[in-house]
Amino acid sequence: MDAEPIHRRGLMLVLSSPSGAGKSTIAKEILARDKNIAMSVSMTTRPKRPGEVVGRDYHFVDKADFNLMVNRREFLEYAKVFDNYYGTPSEPVLEALAAGRDVLFDIDWQGTQQIAEQARDDLVSVFILPPSTTELERRLKKRAQDSLEVVARRMSKASDEMSHYAEYDYVLVNHDIEQSVTRAMSILTAERLRRERMVGLGEFVKGLRAGQ
Amino acid sequence: MDAEPIHRRGLMLVLSSPSGAGKSTIAKEILARDKNIAMSVSMTTRPKRPGEVVGRDYHFVDKADFNLMVNRREFLEYAKVFDNYYGTPSEPVLEALAAGRDVLFDIDWQGTQQIAEQARDDLVSVFILPPSTTELERRLKKRAQDSLEVVARRMSKASDEMSHYAEYDYVLVNHDIEQSVTRAMSILTAERLRRERMVGLGEFVKGLRAGQ
Repeated sequence: MDAEPIHRRGLMLVLSSPSGAGKSTIAKEILARDKNIAMSVSMTTRPKRPGEVVGRDYHFVDKADFNLMVNRREFLEYAKVFDNYYGTPSEPVLEALAAGRDVLFDIDWQGTQQIAEQARDDLVSVFILPPSTTELERRLKKRAQDSLEVVARRMSKASDEMSHYAEYDYVLVNHDIEQSVTRAMSILTAERLRRERMVGLGEFVKGLRAGQ
Repeated sequence: MDAEPIHRRGLMLVLSSPSGAGKSTIAKEILARDKNIAMSVSMTTRPKRPGEVVGRDYHFVDKADFNLMVNRREFLEYAKVFDNYYGTPSEPVLEALAAGRDVLFDIDWQGTQQIAEQARDDLVSVFILPPSTTELERRLKKRAQDSLEVVARRMSKASDEMSHYAEYDYVLVNHDIEQSVTRAMSILTAERLRRERMVGLGEFVKGLRAGQ
């Protein structure tokens, strides 16, 4: 397909949503359907849990090493959640982009803002909304047999997250998983065709104009 | 699917390319596959040709009326080609956009620039390139039994047109019509999902957050 000497710079596809809006399912389907995009692997200071695979689920480091990387500005984004740190090391992501591979992120609005500050041009951000609060509540309740209090707290967190929808490039209202996955795939396909992501396009057009 | 009270502002999808790159075929396929996009109908001062249908192929006016519209700034773009004028009246396009319908344009870089000056936010521009000069020449020669001189003139015009690829949002290298149509449709699908095109999104999110 790419007989022409045009390469493509990879992109970062960020999916954010309140929990319960269907983000994880959409992310999983994108990874299953497209071989040129891989999930970003975060680094964390929390202990490894049974069943987790190093380098697939997380990279595990201690707090001293994490702080060292923070000071060296080696994270695209990071956050403290309760007593633990979570972050995305920049190096593997930037290597993937340079090689024309895309990277998928499942992060919240704060992570998205940090990435935007460092690499806006490579960022494609998608906010996923539930079709209604009733549906969101239903999905959050279905997840576990949680107390009403826990569900209420999650609804409140969902409301906070949703207040940041306006910082995103695209918005998907997730009525139907299949429709949402198809739409997310179209966003990925389209964004790959943006002129700014094509490397060597100027030379290619010069060649066409010179009659090569 | 659009049970939520979100409307969408329509967009203008502009396809430009040197003649022979496959633009008309791609445009025809988009119109056949998507019922929410219609071809923009130009106005011209040239005489109607046999077989042309008023309002489908062109709107025909005399030069005095055309000039009146130019002076009233009632064109999104216009140009003089030899002794005749061609232009896109703004009103029907703006009406379509406000009603959430998309409009397809098959125009050159000059028309695209004029539209960008008036309505950049509603414009999605796609430049189509041939895979090689050999292929472009083959397609231009196939079109008619033209003299070598005519083909050479068209190649020179194609070269001029191609020098403007860098003013476009997206670039398609047309190796294969089916692939290019699919890609153009993905651009259309993705651009419809841009947050800025959604009307009533703020109210919808406010409702979700309030628990409606």
